[in-house]
This record gives sequence, structure tokens and C-alpha cells, in this order.
Amino acid sequence: MAKVKKQPRPKALPPKGFRDYFGPEVEEREAMLDQIAEVYKLYGFDALESSAVETVEALGKFLPDVDRPNEGVFAWQEEESDWLALRYDLTAPLARVYAQFRNDLPTPYRRYAMGPVWRNEKPGPGRFRQFYQCDADTVGAPSVAADAEICAMLADTLETVGIPRGDYQIRINNRKVLNGVLEAMGMEDDGIRANVLRTIDKFDKVGAAGVRELLGEGRLDASGAYIDGVGLKDYQVEPVLDFLTAKSDVPSITIDNLANAVGTSQVGMQGVKELDEIGSSLNSLGYSRDRINIDPSVVRGLGYYTGPVYEAELTFEIKDDKGRPRQFGSVAGGGRYDDLVKRFTGQEVPATGVSIGVDRLLAALRMKGRMESKARGPVIVTVMDRDRMASYQSMVGELRAAGIRAEVYLGNPKNFGNQLKYADKRESPIAIIEGSDEAERGVVQVKDLILGAKIAETATHEEWKDQPAQKEIARSDLVAEIRKMLSDG
Amino acid sequence: MAKVKKQPRPKALPPKGFRDYFGPEVEEREAMLDQIAEVYKLYGFDALESSAVETVEALGKFLPDVDRPNEGVFAWQEEESDWLALRYDLTAPLARVYAQFRNDLPTPYRRYAMGPVWRNEKPGPGRFRQFYQCDADTVGAPSVAADAEICAMLADTLETVGIPRGDYQIRINNRKVLNGVLEAMGMEDDGIRANVLRTIDKFDKVGAAGVRELLGEGRLDASGAYIDGVGLKDYQVEPVLDFLTAKSDVPSITIDNLANAVGTSQVGMQGVKELDEIGSSLNSLGYSRDRINIDPSVVRGLGYYTGPVYEAELTFEIKDDKGRPRQFGSVAGGGRYDDLVKRFTGQEVPATGVSIGVDRLLAALRMKGRMESKARGPVIVTVMDRDRMASYQSMVGELRAAGIRAEVYLGNPKNFGNQLKYADKRESPIAIIEGSDEAERGVVQVKDLILGAKIAETATHEEWKDQPAQKEIARSDLVAEIRKMLSDG
Repeated sequence: MAKVKKQPRPKALPPKGFRDYFGPEVEEREAMLDQIAEVYKLYGFDALESSAVETVEALGKFLPDVDRPNEGVFAWQEEESDWLALRYDLTAPLARVYAQFRNDLPTPYRRYAMGPVWRNEKPGPGRFRQFYQCDADTVGAPSVAADAEICAMLADTLETVGIPRGDYQIRINNRKVLNGVLEAMGMEDDGIRANVLRTIDKFDKVGAAGVRELLGEGRLDASGAYIDGVGLKDYQVEPVLDFLTAKSDVPSITIDNLANAVGTSQVGMQGVKELDEIGSSLNSLGYSRDRINIDPSVVRGLGYYTGPVYEAELTFEIKDDKGRPRQFGSVAGGGRYDDLVKRFTGQEVPATGVSIGVDRLLAALRMKGRMESKARGPVIVTVMDRDRMASYQSMVGELRAAGIRAEVYLGNPKNFGNQLKYADKRESPIAIIEGSDEAERGVVQVKDLILGAKIAETATHEEWKDQPAQKEIARSDLVAEIRKMLSDG
Repeated sequence: MAKVKKQPRPKALPPKGFRDYFGPEVEEREAMLDQIAEVYKLYGFDALESSAVETVEALGKFLPDVDRPNEGVFAWQEEESDWLALRYDLTAPLARVYAQFRNDLPTPYRRYAMGPVWRNEKPGPGRFRQFYQCDADTVGAPSVAADAEICAMLADTLETVGIPRGDYQIRINNRKVLNGVLEAMGMEDDGIRANVLRTIDKFDKVGAAGVRELLGEGRLDASGAYIDGVGLKDYQVEPVLDFLTAKSDVPSITIDNLANAVGTSQVGMQGVKELDEIGSSLNSLGYSRDRINIDPSVVRGLGYYTGPVYEAELTFEIKDDKGRPRQFGSVAGGGRYDDLVKRFTGQEVPATGVSIGVDRLLAALRMKGRMESKARGPVIVTVMDRDRMASYQSMVGELRAAGIRAEVYLGNPKNFGNQLKYADKRESPIAIIEGSDEAERGVVQVKDLILGAKIAETATHEEWKDQPAQKEIARSDLVAEIRKMLSDG
């Protein structure tokens, strides 16, 4: 008889690039998102939770900054119907929602959104295909007051979650100023403009000298390879560098430098005026230059946005993989994009918004020890005697009624050592023991597991035997004693 | 010249069966889930957020209670690789996670999980393809103490979110008792057993007499169609009905009735003993019969679970679509399933857990007016004079610093009526007005929009002109006055 072919067992793994989050990781993120939502709400922003799934048609075929059509998203086709996809960010769904409900929503519409997004990209170390975003956008407000407001809110948010003043810097630039510079240079050719933009994007990496070479003849890079330049003449390169290096300690000089770089360009002048407005408005609200500043060297996103762009960096030092000190870097960014709903309605609607990198901000807070982890293991009531289960249940009931996290051991109670191992794995602060002898005498044994662990590390065998981490208390004092031990701990 | 074909505009709609949630809907759900998490944590449960995407292999091919292979989920194939799918519940991912991390996780493992799940089903009115679940499960605890604990926690949870004692009932049954009944009847044939189970599932609808007919010859249903019966003899039907109608006001009599129904069946006796244990344990903890009770007429899920099953119903009356009074009904259910990770490891691991229907519970709380909606529109500072923007920004800054939700109107300020319409749409309680005249005199106008709306409904034109809902206050009293008006409101 043919043997029945056995199905291989499924692998107990998530798909590549996906991961799970346990206990404190979940709680800490929740707590941080709650704090951020409070600030956003204070500024008049309303929550929006759009569906995680959109039609590919509504999402559009492009990821921001990515020019591979239809790649980068998880998509599938409904039976003989639409292609659906998981959202890749929170902005594309906002565009769809605003276009759909534009007659019911207030204008301006301030909304915040928090939740996972999905990217169908090659996973790498620390690079996941599902991650959280946390956005705030103002739709339908053309004035730069909306941009200034979001920058102020971003500063408040960072301080609220635990990044103190001095440890962050919000830097503002404006795409219009760059457009003005390009106009002043007579860069009409779209191809060359794109090349110039791409080169400017490397400013963070190669600095002013590098950009100068790359806009001109070319450059020998660190690996020894020669990179062809854009081929601009010196007099054309100059305005770009004037723009990138316009920053001065005195804001009015920065503004003057920028005005100089854009020459007579209308759009450029407009951009400089906007930056000046944002800067002075924030200043008059008390957001001094050490918190929010005009900085033309902010280039990230300049290709994508249409007006002001802003970026929040954490300025404290960390060590990189090789142990070298470097700044923690960017945790949020955003800007103005004025064609949000045009795809749907044909109408141009101005919008500006910010996205906080939730995971990076959490990592920063953990690094600084600013994540007040409220997560604590439960008090464990051990099971000495199966028949006394009701008594153990009463104890945890009393403890919970007093707001103390507590549980009865529900594994096989035969081996008491296993119960203590379990308590250890749960990071339990206290174990409670009540055998029939204790029950008769109206007492319980209380074991301080945190103190116990400390003693176990350092104590001699003799000291260990004295068990100073364990004591007997009256059963009727249980809640009061445990509460006291927890508040001492 | 050929005309360039214009791309049609994308439709601004979510996929069929998906929806968006706005403002208070999002906040109220968040608040409720936070409250539930607090209770779960108090009981020693730890948070788990597994990835939304799983391999189809890990999910398994079946939805609970659904026997269409591979249907019911949103799935797609990775390039020349695995099939991936969106999770359809929170239990299948728990199985994968527990199997994957079983050596690191404590045993028993108490975990809670909250989040959206996706079902690829035909959408209908009020039936969505993305919805929230909120689960708590204990993995690795074989004793019914774990089931009793979850029932107690469920009662605490309902009361914590705002369902008072008397408005809910948690009912407990046990699959093993039913198995005992079937054994006592000599029902060995799997096909007939399945038919009997299916018929029992109709008990809620057709009652004892209906089940009797359906187990026997057959039944004329309400529409006039004749439904063939299972074809059991009277003496075989009797034990099933004894089981279903065993409930008495006196718990010990219920237990006796069940013991009678299972006869000498070992598994049946075991089931009755378990129910007795759960009942008396909960009773000794103070969960009286009006909150949690043994009830053999609970049949939902009996086909799926392997031991105790439990269901929480809200017992207050609502009106159905046709205006007839009926009970609100089920908001949570669960039970014991002992083959959670066997697919992955070959090892049987006992588990028991509950799932709360988040949307139904929210609907119930809203119906009872128990959702303390903290959501309130922001105070709106109107723009009378574009040049005074900095002054308006200062006002909202001061209000926010005092914890008051506030914003400056950022739309086109030309038409003042539009600003008030906007305030109305935002459900703003108060509008603030400062023109150059007010600024010179150091005052602001404060408009009570809630009072104003009331007056507008009832007042005569003369009364309206007196504008009692608007008053002038000193600019320096702004925060104090607004705070007072909001706390009066």
C-alpha cells in the first residue's frame, strides 16, 4: 500500500522583512503616540484612520521619491476587478479621503494619522517592510502660517515626548528659493535641472567643495572612481553654492544672502519672503533660533515638495557601528506639496505636513533613557497546594482591586523551582507563597525577587540560606505590604 | 494630429467593503482599547503586536468555522516565492509567534493583542472587510483555572469600559459535555455528529421544540419550506434536549441535570466536573450568577472549541430595524482550543482565550450614552486683520500652554462669515475676535458659539441683535475667561 505522503510542517516564521513586537515595545510606542496625539489635538488637528487597503488606482503609481512604477507596494487583484494595495504612506490615503469628503470636511482640514504602512522593498538589517508613521497635515491653507504652525507643533511634540530643548533642531528651507536660483542661472532645460537637484541632494555627503566639483567637471570619489559632473560653468555653479551656504548666525544675513542668490527671479523672491515670514513669526512666538532655524543646507525632500521644507534633527551624539561619534540625525521631516488632490478632482489644493519617524524617535528616547518604562512584571502567587486554588485566586483578586498587577501561577505546579523560574522570566518583582501551614497560621511568605536576584549575585552560601529577601507577613496585611514593597522598589 | 488620449481621473473611493474613521470615532475606540489593555495588564497579560502580513503557509488554509480552503483572506504571491496574506484574526498569528518563540516565552504565556484584521468576504451593510479585534489568550495552561480567570477578566473589562452590572451576562458551556451526550447516545458516525452539531447551532433561533423536530423527522420553517431532519429516534433526541435545557436557577441542579444527560460517558463527566469547578471558583471570587453563569444553551463556537466556551451578552434592550425591542446581544466570546501550535511543532499545547467585538462594544456604549466623548472642537481665533497674525498666534499659544485646544483660522480670511461657518463645522465652542480697534483698547471679543447656536434656534430677531452670546473681555484675561466658559459649558 502506498504510504500517505505527509505534509511538511509549516515554518513558524513571519514573512521576510516583517517582525513582531512584544510587551514593553508595544506599550512604549503606544504611550509615545498618545503623547504626540495630545499635542496634535491641542493644535486643532483631528484624528483620521483611513483603511489600510486602497485601490492601486487611488494610490497612484509612484512612491514619493521613487520612480519605479508600481513597485514598492504590496498589491493583488480582486477577482475580475480592481487591483488593491496596502498603503505605502499616510499621505496618499489623505489625498483620497480629502477628495472623497471635500464637501463635508472643514477647510482648512487639519488631520493627524498614526499607523503602520507597508513597503514592498528588499528587507535589510533594521529595515522592515511594515513600520509606523505618524503624520500631521493641513490641507487647504495656502499661507505659510500653516507651515510655521507645523514647525512649532513639531518642536512642542519633541519636547513633550522627552527630547529637551538643546537636543533637537528644526531646520527650514524653501523649494521656491532653489527654483529662483535655477531661474537666475538660466537653467531652463529640465534634464539639467534634474541633474542639478540630484547633485544638491549630495550636499550632506560631499559638502560644498564636492558639490562644486560635481556641478562642474566631475569628481574623484572616496572609492577612487571618477564621477562625471553636470558640466556647468563656474559662474553658473556659484549661485547654487551661494544658496547652499547662505546660512549665517544672524537670520537677517541669511535672508540677505538668499535674496542675493536668487537675483531678480520672482519665484525666488517669493521663496525668500516666505522664509523670512516663517522665521519671524516663529521667533515672535518664542521659538528661538536654537530650536527652529532657517537653513538653506536642508536639501532632503527639495525635489519632492513645492514650497517650505522642514526637518527635525536630534543633535546629541551617539556612536555609530564603528564606535565613532556622530549626531543622532533626522527623526521627522515634511513640507508643502500643492497638488495633493489634483489627480482626483483636477483642482489644485495646497497642503503642508510633517511625518515623524516613530521607530527612530523611540530609539532615540530609549538611548537617552527618557522612556519611562511603566512595564513591570506581575506579582506571582505561587501554587503550593492545588486544593487551595480559591485562596490564591482571592489574593490576586485583592491585589488587582488595589491596582496591582498580579496573577496565580497556572502552569503545572508540581515543581516549585519551575514556578520561580517562571516568575523570573516574567520579571516579577514579588512571589507569594502560602502552603497549608501558612494558611492555618493566617500568614503568607513574601519573596522579594529583585532583592533576591541581587543577593544571589553577590551573597555567600551562608548568607543565601538566611534568605533575607523572604519574609512572613499576616495574610490580612497582604495588599498593604505588597504596595509598600513595590513603592520602595 | 492625433489627440493625446487623456487618462481618466482615479475615483476617490476606498475599495469596496473598506471605510475610514474620523475624529471622535478614532479617539473613542483608542480610549476604549486603552481601558481594556489596563485590565488585561492587571491580570498579568502582556502586549503582542504581530505583523499584519503572514505567509499563507503559517496562517493555515482555513478560517475558523469556514471550510472554504484559501478563501476569505487577501493573499498575493511574492516574486517567485511565498504566498503572503493579511491576517484574518489574531489567533492564527499567536500560534505562529508562540511556535517561533516558545523557548523564550514564559509558560503559561498570557498575551493580549489589539488591531485590525482583514476578511476577503462579500461586503454588506455594516459588514466591513477590515475591522478591529481585541483578544486575550493564555497559552500553556491546561487547567480550567485559566478559563475561569478569563471569564472574570471579561466581566471586569465590561464594567471598566462602562457596562454596569446587570447589563451584561457571561455564560459558560463546555464542549466536552456535548461530546459526552453524543457518546451516551452512541453517535459514532462523524457525519451524523456533524449534523447534530449543526442542528444544535440553531437552538438560539428555533428553540427546544424546533431542535426536537430538526433532530427527528424534520420541520416546516417560517417561510413554509420543509427542512429535512437528522432522523434520530426520540430516545436519541432526548439527551440532546436534556443538555440544551439543563439550566436551572440553582447551579447545583444545572450540574445534576448535565450529569444526568451525559450518563456514564467519561469525557462527559469530565466536562461536567470542569463546569462545576469554574462555576464554584468564580462564585467564591464574588462573581455571582447574575454576572457569570453556567448555561448549556450557549452553543455558538461549540463546534470549534475543545473544552469550555464562554460568551458575553449585553442584556439591555434596543430596538431592531423594525422597531421591535430585542436584547443587544453578544459582544465577546471565546473558549479552549488545544491544538494551537501543533501544526508547527507536532506538540499539543493547551490554550484558552477570548475575543472582544470592538465595534459592537463601542456601538453599545454609544447607545447607552456611556462613551464620555472628550472630543471637543478647538477654540477658533478668527483673522480680522492679516497684519495682526502674530498677535493671533500668540493667543493660541497661550491657550495651548493652558491645555486648551485652539487654532488660528488659516483659510482665506476675507469673508468673516466663512470663518464662522468653519468654526461651526469644527464644532468649535468659542470664537475670538480681535480687530485693530480691539487691539488698541487691549480687549478681545469672545463669542460663545454653543450658546449662540441655541439662541439662533429660539430667539427673535430683536433678541438676536442684542448678541448676548458675545462679550468683550480684557486681552489679559483671555486664558482665564476661556477656561471659565469651557468649564461652564
